[in-house]
Amino acid sequence: MSQRSIKPLPLTQERFAPYGDVIETGHSEAGSMNEARFERFDDLCKLDVGDGRIAISIAQSRSPTSLPYLVDMVERHPLGSQAFVPLTQCKLIVLVAPAAESVDENALVAFETNGRQGINYHRGTWHMPLLAFETAQRYLIIDRAAGAPNCDIHRLDEPILLLS
Amino acid sequence: MSQRSIKPLPLTQERFAPYGDVIETGHSEAGSMNEARFERFDDLCKLDVGDGRIAISIAQSRSPTSLPYLVDMVERHPLGSQAFVPLTQCKLIVLVAPAAESVDENALVAFETNGRQGINYHRGTWHMPLLAFETAQRYLIIDRAAGAPNCDIHRLDEPILLLS
Repeated sequence: MSQRSIKPLPLTQERFAPYGDVIETGHSEAGSMNEARFERFDDLCKLDVGDGRIAISIAQSRSPTSLPYLVDMVERHPLGSQAFVPLTQCKLIVLVAPAAESVDENALVAFETNGRQGINYHRGTWHMPLLAFETAQRYLIIDRAAGAPNCDIHRLDEPILLLS
Repeated sequence: MSQRSIKPLPLTQERFAPYGDVIETGHSEAGSMNEARFERFDDLCKLDVGDGRIAISIAQSRSPTSLPYLVDMVERHPLGSQAFVPLTQCKLIVLVAPAAESVDENALVAFETNGRQGINYHRGTWHMPLLAFETAQRYLIIDRAAGAPNCDIHRLDEPILLLS
């Protein structure tokens, strides 16, 4: 039996639009602040936690992953969006499928960030859990504060090999 | 006439408690996530935007400031908290006074971050505007989305010289 594999595409706002937002400064118009000492890029993603509360957390990688990597599950958060912004220069690889009751495994696609881009999964987007490719990588997480169960898991019928 | 001056103290959660939160991993207990490949430090600051909406923005420094620097005004956001998290390794210096209708200029104190710490001003905390000491420093801002007027300015009766 052959192994299904996917090679990540470079992440762009346009490609990622069905799944969420790219948090970056390139695609929005800059304002200025503090007597023009800063450029300011406003309101870069759509946070959506329903009647929940937004929390700011930090994740730090302990054990790195290397490619190729076999993905055997994806998850979704039915109650809220979830954003990851790298606090250290590091690439992020995501595997996603559109928000829907069930996962269309043929619709799974992978993207690779440029090392600075953050991402915001819209509420319900299916995605593989965060991976890091080095230790001590740090990410800011902006999502719904813990409370009600907010993670559905889908085991892939056909695991996917993520290629570099 | 002598010039009032302030030398920033190293920022700690305890020192900053009257003004806001320090967004860092040191002072909270780590959980784990994604099969223990990450440590996760949850819910690191108190976001408070009242009936407003939380926005995620990025500021990038254009013209750096050097110390000593003369501060002649402070501001506050009466309608919401405001967080700054460095996306590049860089120190942040803040000058703050407690939330109150008027500024007690004798209560102004300054803190310096360790280069990784983020800060979250609680709603109404008086603070000097963000300064950067190098160009192309980047900060994630988590605050109340633009809308109603949300910035009060106070000109200092006695400007303060920030020392290094």
